[in-house]
Amino acid sequence: MKKDKGEFKVTPWEVSGNVDYDKLVKQFGTSLISDKIKKRLAKCHPLLRRGIYFSHREFDRWLDAYDKGKNVSVITGRGPSERMHIGHLVPFLVAKSLQDEFDCEVFIPISDDEKFYTKEGMTYEKVIAYAVDNIIDLIALGFKPGKTFIFEDFVYTEIYKYAARVAKRITYSTAKAAFGLTPEQNIGWSFYPAMQAAHILFPQFYRGKHVSVVPVAIDQDPFIRLTRDIAEHKDFDFEKPTALHAKFIPSLYGEAKMSSSGEGVINLTDTPQEVERKIRKYAFSGGRDTIEEHRKKGGNPDIDVSFQYLNMFFEPDDAKLKKIHDDYKSGKMLTSELKQILIDKINAFLKEHQKQREIAKKHFDKFLLKY
Amino acid sequence: MKKDKGEFKVTPWEVSGNVDYDKLVKQFGTSLISDKIKKRLAKCHPLLRRGIYFSHREFDRWLDAYDKGKNVSVITGRGPSERMHIGHLVPFLVAKSLQDEFDCEVFIPISDDEKFYTKEGMTYEKVIAYAVDNIIDLIALGFKPGKTFIFEDFVYTEIYKYAARVAKRITYSTAKAAFGLTPEQNIGWSFYPAMQAAHILFPQFYRGKHVSVVPVAIDQDPFIRLTRDIAEHKDFDFEKPTALHAKFIPSLYGEAKMSSSGEGVINLTDTPQEVERKIRKYAFSGGRDTIEEHRKKGGNPDIDVSFQYLNMFFEPDDAKLKKIHDDYKSGKMLTSELKQILIDKINAFLKEHQKQREIAKKHFDKFLLKY
Repeated sequence: MKKDKGEFKVTPWEVSGNVDYDKLVKQFGTSLISDKIKKRLAKCHPLLRRGIYFSHREFDRWLDAYDKGKNVSVITGRGPSERMHIGHLVPFLVAKSLQDEFDCEVFIPISDDEKFYTKEGMTYEKVIAYAVDNIIDLIALGFKPGKTFIFEDFVYTEIYKYAARVAKRITYSTAKAAFGLTPEQNIGWSFYPAMQAAHILFPQFYRGKHVSVVPVAIDQDPFIRLTRDIAEHKDFDFEKPTALHAKFIPSLYGEAKMSSSGEGVINLTDTPQEVERKIRKYAFSGGRDTIEEHRKKGGNPDIDVSFQYLNMFFEPDDAKLKKIHDDYKSGKMLTSELKQILIDKINAFLKEHQKQREIAKKHFDKFLLKY
Repeated sequence: MKKDKGEFKVTPWEVSGNVDYDKLVKQFGTSLISDKIKKRLAKCHPLLRRGIYFSHREFDRWLDAYDKGKNVSVITGRGPSERMHIGHLVPFLVAKSLQDEFDCEVFIPISDDEKFYTKEGMTYEKVIAYAVDNIIDLIALGFKPGKTFIFEDFVYTEIYKYAARVAKRITYSTAKAAFGLTPEQNIGWSFYPAMQAAHILFPQFYRGKHVSVVPVAIDQDPFIRLTRDIAEHKDFDFEKPTALHAKFIPSLYGEAKMSSSGEGVINLTDTPQEVERKIRKYAFSGGRDTIEEHRKKGGNPDIDVSFQYLNMFFEPDDAKLKKIHDDYKSGKMLTSELKQILIDKINAFLKEHQKQREIAKKHFDKFLLKY
């Protein structure tokens, strides 16, 4: 279907067109993050304080509960179908940042079952192996032991008890509408909506009624809505979970939504040489066609993927980021120089991450929920 | 729909008309139990050797495996939605008898999840309480500890791992056709076919590939067929489970299929007075209208529920049973005398059962699978 200029589509299964995030907030019925909330997040991760997380559902209620000394928590998960790349870290960097700032518990369900159900070639053994590998990456991010609970559906199967209680309150019709199910899909797939809602409600099943927040890309909001409806059912004595919504993170190529693995993403296991090669070759540039023209007219940091990655992930210092922005815009800084900054930053991050991965392997017991 | 004389219907959801069991065997594509097999079961429970279990799928393969010294097992379960009555015991009496005769392992899944999903008013707490109560009855039957494995889906949640592997191989279409699902039913309900098949395959998930047998009422055979198909999928290295099929057990009223609780059934917790009252008042009689006529023309043991209960459950001695049969048929024995024999037998059974129930409460750990 041909789209008019300015038309766009955002569903959990399709993102296309130029997304107008202000319009989306109205369409979805969410709220833009206010200046008041921004202030509270001023010391948080760049993803939170530089507007990549731009919308929310009742996150003010989460902050209010925190201010009143009540228990609050963060819940965000991962479907382990491949090794992780930097884009996959987005909600976890935010979860860790909220944990650091608000000293709260973080819950991380690993939906090995989802990937097993929805990917034909994904064997039971393979998905378990990916889960273990991904968990190493998550622990390596520096979550607090004793305050962070990671669990795999196929290991911490107690989750089935909670999913069952949710499943009773989701008809097949509802699941079909919300998750786009078809009759040819397997019945694990059609059960998974209950598991996903149980994940989002898990902090309350586990710790009792309290306000939790789900950092999530905006396209996943329909699942949050479904879960908020379930939380209100008289079967449960739950608070409605709140949400923080992110814009889409571009691939190196500058595509709207980073999703696939391969050359367009920086894997957490990439070597310094691989990182350098990928950034030099693929990172979409806001620079001019020639050095001469660039020096004269300057580059466009707003569309430059290297600058965006520094903004989102790798340059936490606001003054330094502003200087890079201004120097690139004025033409003082060349694309090759901007790329070099990003390459150095990513490689420093990955060097530390890969070191932390080795340590993380020994600390599974401090983080994994077991029966 | 009006049915012609001789017409009948048997599905997992409806049994009506006068069931012609020979026809049913042809319709379902099962096999009548042969004389050769009957011989092997000559020392087993009356249910097995008096033709109430009348049909099978490859039970000869189970016997062959046993003869070759291979591992064989029995699997039969219970959906705990009420306290148990005598009709509920049918497959368990058979499982115990096979265990006694062939010294094999018995697996007993308790599908608390099924009853939770399919009965609106059944709370999570209630279904767990029924499960515990029912398990007491099962242990009280005298299964061998160390060779008998009982598990509740909501307690031994590891079953979810196995159900997931089965679920991947059942489409919603297939489940809908086999289980009569509708879109208004909840997604726990539509997932349950996977759980049920996982139950039937559980002996092999747990112990590795071997031949197991499922004692089951004939109307449940469609589920066995579905599971046999799954067992053959290349995902698994499984033997196709075999089955033994029972005719329907009449209620006291003489209805074709005993299913509801209440006055038409003998509950395992009934007092001697309740048993006497129910049998005297409700047990459908094959006797004549007057004592005089009965003495002259004799009764009909074949339609008399008291005689059938003695035949199926309570008079293991063939010679004694024959004498009762002949005396009743000749008119020498009155209905009130026949009923008194049954009352005494049931009360002796229940007295012992209720004593064993008290002992059973202390032996959960010897039978229950835990994570």
